[in-house]
Amino acid sequence: MPNHSFFQNQGPFPITELASISSCRLEGNDQLSINDVATIADATPNTITFLSNKKYASELASSNASACIISEEFIKSAPTSMTLLIAKDPYAAYAAIAHHFYPSHASSLGPSQTETIHPSATIGNNCYIAPTAVIGANAVIGDHATIDAGAVIGQYVKIGNNANIGANTTISHSIIGDDFRCYPGVSIGQDGFGFATVNGKHVKVPQLGGVTIGNDVEIGANCSIDRGANNDTIISDGCRLDNLIQIGHNVRLGRGCVVVSHVGIAGSATLGNYVVVGGQVGIAGHLTIGDMVTIAAQSGVAQNIESGQTVGGSPALPIAQWRRQAMALKRLVKPKKNKTS
Amino acid sequence: MPNHSFFQNQGPFPITELASISSCRLEGNDQLSINDVATIADATPNTITFLSNKKYASELASSNASACIISEEFIKSAPTSMTLLIAKDPYAAYAAIAHHFYPSHASSLGPSQTETIHPSATIGNNCYIAPTAVIGANAVIGDHATIDAGAVIGQYVKIGNNANIGANTTISHSIIGDDFRCYPGVSIGQDGFGFATVNGKHVKVPQLGGVTIGNDVEIGANCSIDRGANNDTIISDGCRLDNLIQIGHNVRLGRGCVVVSHVGIAGSATLGNYVVVGGQVGIAGHLTIGDMVTIAAQSGVAQNIESGQTVGGSPALPIAQWRRQAMALKRLVKPKKNKTS
Amino acid sequence: MPNHSFFQNQGPFPITELASISSCRLEGNDQLSINDVATIADATPNTITFLSNKKYASELASSNASACIISEEFIKSAPTSMTLLIAKDPYAAYAAIAHHFYPSHASSLGPSQTETIHPSATIGNNCYIAPTAVIGANAVIGDHATIDAGAVIGQYVKIGNNANIGANTTISHSIIGDDFRCYPGVSIGQDGFGFATVNGKHVKVPQLGGVTIGNDVEIGANCSIDRGANNDTIISDGCRLDNLIQIGHNVRLGRGCVVVSHVGIAGSATLGNYVVVGGQVGIAGHLTIGDMVTIAAQSGVAQNIESGQTVGGSPALPIAQWRRQAMALKRLVKPKKNKTS
Repeated sequence: MPNHSFFQNQGPFPITELASISSCRLEGNDQLSINDVATIADATPNTITFLSNKKYASELASSNASACIISEEFIKSAPTSMTLLIAKDPYAAYAAIAHHFYPSHASSLGPSQTETIHPSATIGNNCYIAPTAVIGANAVIGDHATIDAGAVIGQYVKIGNNANIGANTTISHSIIGDDFRCYPGVSIGQDGFGFATVNGKHVKVPQLGGVTIGNDVEIGANCSIDRGANNDTIISDGCRLDNLIQIGHNVRLGRGCVVVSHVGIAGSATLGNYVVVGGQVGIAGHLTIGDMVTIAAQSGVAQNIESGQTVGGSPALPIAQWRRQAMALKRLVKPKKNKTS
Repeated sequence: MPNHSFFQNQGPFPITELASISSCRLEGNDQLSINDVATIADATPNTITFLSNKKYASELASSNASACIISEEFIKSAPTSMTLLIAKDPYAAYAAIAHHFYPSHASSLGPSQTETIHPSATIGNNCYIAPTAVIGANAVIGDHATIDAGAVIGQYVKIGNNANIGANTTISHSIIGDDFRCYPGVSIGQDGFGFATVNGKHVKVPQLGGVTIGNDVEIGANCSIDRGANNDTIISDGCRLDNLIQIGHNVRLGRGCVVVSHVGIAGSATLGNYVVVGGQVGIAGHLTIGDMVTIAAQSGVAQNIESGQTVGGSPALPIAQWRRQAMALKRLVKPKKNKTS
Repeated sequence: MPNHSFFQNQGPFPITELASISSCRLEGNDQLSINDVATIADATPNTITFLSNKKYASELASSNASACIISEEFIKSAPTSMTLLIAKDPYAAYAAIAHHFYPSHASSLGPSQTETIHPSATIGNNCYIAPTAVIGANAVIGDHATIDAGAVIGQYVKIGNNANIGANTTISHSIIGDDFRCYPGVSIGQDGFGFATVNGKHVKVPQLGGVTIGNDVEIGANCSIDRGANNDTIISDGCRLDNLIQIGHNVRLGRGCVVVSHVGIAGSATLGNYVVVGGQVGIAGHLTIGDMVTIAAQSGVAQNIESGQTVGGSPALPIAQWRRQAMALKRLVKPKKNKTS
């Protein structure tokens, strides 16, 4: 579900209006009133969801959504009680409908803030707000916080006690726990990388989730953490992120994960607790990485990994296999007499 | 040609003066007056160009430059009508001459701006300029723009309508179309990575190009896009860049390219239209990548790629070959009985 | 030794107090007064050091430290004259003791600065400080400097003459030479990535070093350079760093190194003079790379490299071997008749 701390729902809308603005064919109850957009898993009655990745087709049967945007070929995956908006490109149709519910707004701040600290912001006791820091409307900062120079805290952002926000950091669309530390130049809560390509044009899909960060989390310099597309991006308690890391929309990190610099985690990947990710690792989207997994530096992870595994290489293999592979490779180019190399 | 929107030409200079300040030997017309520096391809009469990469030697014959900085060994590549400045290190000599025409200036702003919004800047209708945003002299911002807190727009920068500039972003030396969006922490228009090494010292080569960005372009958080060394770095209409991407000087992206996070594209690489570049890919300098090419995540591209190809691996291979290679590698370390692994 | 330009030592403390707050067992002189924490190599009398990486065990015998935090198994590595604090996890015990000497402070600025330029800062002649730039207490900026908009210079930072500090850059805990240039969005001097994991909690190890940058150094956009854990991170004269580079705590770059974008150099790695590091290279922690080494793009360096070598691949090999390996790999999947690929 969109994060209503940050996004104002313009609905409800009649299903016929949604069909019209998205150029979909309607099958089912044309009297429906739709309250919101939602993912298949999180939908509640009177919301509309969408199916654009066949990986999720089997989940549709148990969704509580009243309506679904869907392509012709997957109609049979939908329960017969579900009203359907049939689209050639369901993701593009979803983009149009999501934009109808939530017309975009463009700044971390409200559209008219002129003060560096908005009068409606709540600042706890014993805080230091450096000169040139900017805090948006209705933001809430806990006690004993330090907000360094040039940091920008967006409207409705909530940050717990003992926060240490680095200089020139930008945080929007986020709810953050206690004991948060982030170093300079971090960007948190901006739009994820989501678009539908329609006739050669990449159409923006509204990014309606937020970022939820637990307690005792540390984020290194110049990291970027995108907010979710629909649900939140989640960084759980006790995580440690080094510098220059990319966290895509809807990524979920479990408790105590350690992520080294230049790692990229693509959208909707889920990491368990105490995962250790070496430097420059790439993790593809929509994967599930179990608890206590260790991923060697520079690995490329393109498949799910079970809890407790250690992997290396690109594409990543169990670490022992990767090491044998590296040895075998060396042997390939070394003659047995081992004189020429 | 240098981008005269941003750089003030101190010429013309007599060719003899240029020979003197660059310690070159002059061969040809010592009465020439030189108006500007230029690349071999873009030179016009009365400009001086340089040949430091033998890859471009064959282009020299058709150049319109009146003079060329060149090493002894390539003299025969130059047309006989061309006046030559003969140097041991033509790139270093070019650096000295370019610096003579364009003494560097150091800030995104003019050297004396004290206001956050310079009075000579033009701001369109219905714009929101957040507190602590800074706009330089003679900058032009179109209608309906949002410039978020801490964003810095350099002098003479032009941005079209409907721009959304993220917080703590810095943009200089750039001409940008309509419907531009960039997220927080982006750096656009700073000096490219160019120097000539002379007696163990890395001497800066003036970076005299700008950045040209088309319409409907989106740039993710914490990206860096260097301005050109001589011509502009170009991001064409409809491109989408994810977070933490490096675009080197004089890179050209065609229309509708999609570039995923942590990609590095080295100087003077040219990508066609609708190229898709996976996460953490590296593309070497001076390469040509055709239209509709797809590059798998973590690939290393060191050769030109023809239109329509899909490649993977480092060094990158056609995708089918790369997959067979990965399978063959696995077999190398798996005995046939497949018991021990 | 901690960098006393930036960190206020709260000691001395009786060794018994340090044993108590770190839950260590004391063996040796319980009347010792300890002045400071230090590394094994740099310790002076009346300081306490720690051994948590067995790689350094052999150095302990020649250390001048009066005391050492150590695990049971390495007691015999310590000279008999050394007083020992015996810990299950020496790194965690060190964290507690270091924090006792140097309680953390959280901002690049002092805890109460309200002016953008602190009155105690010293600014040289002929400087341009742009609007929204912030300069901390006791900072010293040389002559002819340009500090662009949104740049934040922390307290006690010293920067030589002719500096050009990019917009939205943050510099703290740093001593920098003449002719320094850094581009927008750079973060220098923030905490390194150091923690001890105790009962599932990642406990911060105070980062008490600074950053020392020589003369004529250039740092590209959106780089992050962490300060040292105990000694300084060092970037020597004449280095050139491209964009989006990660330099971990206690890394040392020799003179004239050239580092291309997206490189990550992990903590305590030491590079000699004139090392050239290609784009997206990763260098593991605690390695020694000799002078004049060249590392091909995307390499993963996991072992020391002798001076003058050129290496490539991940894991990195001598370049000729790496090339033969790539050729051998290609042959693996190409039948001799070469028809099917």
